[in-house]
Amino acid sequence: MRFAKGHGTGNDFLILADTGDELAMSPEFVARLCDRRTGLGADGILRVVRATAADAPAQWFMDYRNADGSLAEMCGNGIRVFACYLIAHGLATGPELTLATRAGLRQVRQEPDGDFTVDMGTPVVRGRSEATVGTMTYEGLEVSLGNPHLACLVDLPVAELDLSAPPVIDPDRFPEGANVEVVRVHRSGQLDMRVYERGSGVTLSCGTGAVAAAVAAAEADPAAAPAGRWAVRVPGGDLVVTLTGTTSLLTGPAVIVAEGVLDEAWLSVPV
Amino acid sequence: MRFAKGHGTGNDFLILADTGDELAMSPEFVARLCDRRTGLGADGILRVVRATAADAPAQWFMDYRNADGSLAEMCGNGIRVFACYLIAHGLATGPELTLATRAGLRQVRQEPDGDFTVDMGTPVVRGRSEATVGTMTYEGLEVSLGNPHLACLVDLPVAELDLSAPPVIDPDRFPEGANVEVVRVHRSGQLDMRVYERGSGVTLSCGTGAVAAAVAAAEADPAAAPAGRWAVRVPGGDLVVTLTGTTSLLTGPAVIVAEGVLDEAWLSVPV
Repeated sequence: MRFAKGHGTGNDFLILADTGDELAMSPEFVARLCDRRTGLGADGILRVVRATAADAPAQWFMDYRNADGSLAEMCGNGIRVFACYLIAHGLATGPELTLATRAGLRQVRQEPDGDFTVDMGTPVVRGRSEATVGTMTYEGLEVSLGNPHLACLVDLPVAELDLSAPPVIDPDRFPEGANVEVVRVHRSGQLDMRVYERGSGVTLSCGTGAVAAAVAAAEADPAAAPAGRWAVRVPGGDLVVTLTGTTSLLTGPAVIVAEGVLDEAWLSVPV
Repeated sequence: MRFAKGHGTGNDFLILADTGDELAMSPEFVARLCDRRTGLGADGILRVVRATAADAPAQWFMDYRNADGSLAEMCGNGIRVFACYLIAHGLATGPELTLATRAGLRQVRQEPDGDFTVDMGTPVVRGRSEATVGTMTYEGLEVSLGNPHLACLVDLPVAELDLSAPPVIDPDRFPEGANVEVVRVHRSGQLDMRVYERGSGVTLSCGTGAVAAAVAAAEADPAAAPAGRWAVRVPGGDLVVTLTGTTSLLTGPAVIVAEGVLDEAWLSVPV
């Protein structure tokens, strides 16, 4: 079984090209592959599967699995790596691609500099709530991008915030939890963001979180146009969010680190 | 550049076959490869280099680097994976191999069941000292296997011990720090061990630590012969330590997970 390993701003993935849709992706197998010590290690798996006619014009379906084997609808960092892999392997021609995901079709474009831009859909603002981070409580904007976010603007360097424990949020507002972003807005319009992802904890990057951060920054600035471009620095690198007034675009790098073949003896161990 | 990824009881390594000794292994390059998100990820790198005439009869030198790029003398888990790779690639014929390391020549044998046994050298007992683990203080045996250990026998399940912070040890006795093992001896002779490695923190396994644990268990049992066989369960799997009275043998598995090629574009980024 062939694999590639790649990452987008430090969110890392194994790509499995399963063009014949032959792999049985049990949660146990996914977890075994994603184990960072005894497997290859990754935040998740991007399986390349041929799309069905119902997904036209998409030719490829991104079957995304979290490292624990659970399904996920979409991944803003993963889909860039997925598109990068397809183009590098001649499975798709850029620069414009339509890809099928569990969240529906997604438009992806390879930029002239090699970065990829993904249409992340319309952010839905649901109101305001609070998050307690360490000993501090911050007000934040509730933003949905398919998944729930609470983006909190803070007035100190985000690196200084204590995210060692999950931020405390209102369980009545977020019965299924939420990703909590802490965001510092610089005068230049640049945002610094850190994120605590429900189910994963602190991560190096979160694509939907970057969009939520930009929405919160735009909302807080009476001078900002509803459409605008925000540079979002996350611990794993730099992203750009463009709010158009109707949708949100996420631009960032996609890196392939290595490609190879899983060992037959390793694969044959029953899971 | 070709690589393999493997592990021994959860201690994982990238193997780089550099038979022509052509790779410039800067600490930055090693750290970049070992980064678990933006690289391939591993606890360390095992570079396969042809041994010099001075190392005869060893044909191969194990150039071991820690994930931070620093050099290490020896690695009891790594050398099994190194031997496994050499045999799998026809670079050496088993079952007996002599390998060169920075700690000197090491004898390795492939067992009929596929496990590997390494002669780890003579454990040197240096006396007794104490380690404070969480809120508890334990007496331990100071054992040197090239690197310093303090192996503490405890009378509760080792999984219950709080290793979230480094155990506190006597800085006068251990000016360069030490690996601290907590070891529970079962009536059957089986040992359960967890380890806090200086410089790395809690790891899934430590080969020299397993030997130190066996030495401490043997020393504490007036009925135990100086030579004996100890089954050591670590979080990452099962090891066997054989004390012969003159040397120590470590037996355990070696697993190759995958092989492949690093991406040229990824490699070409200056570090």
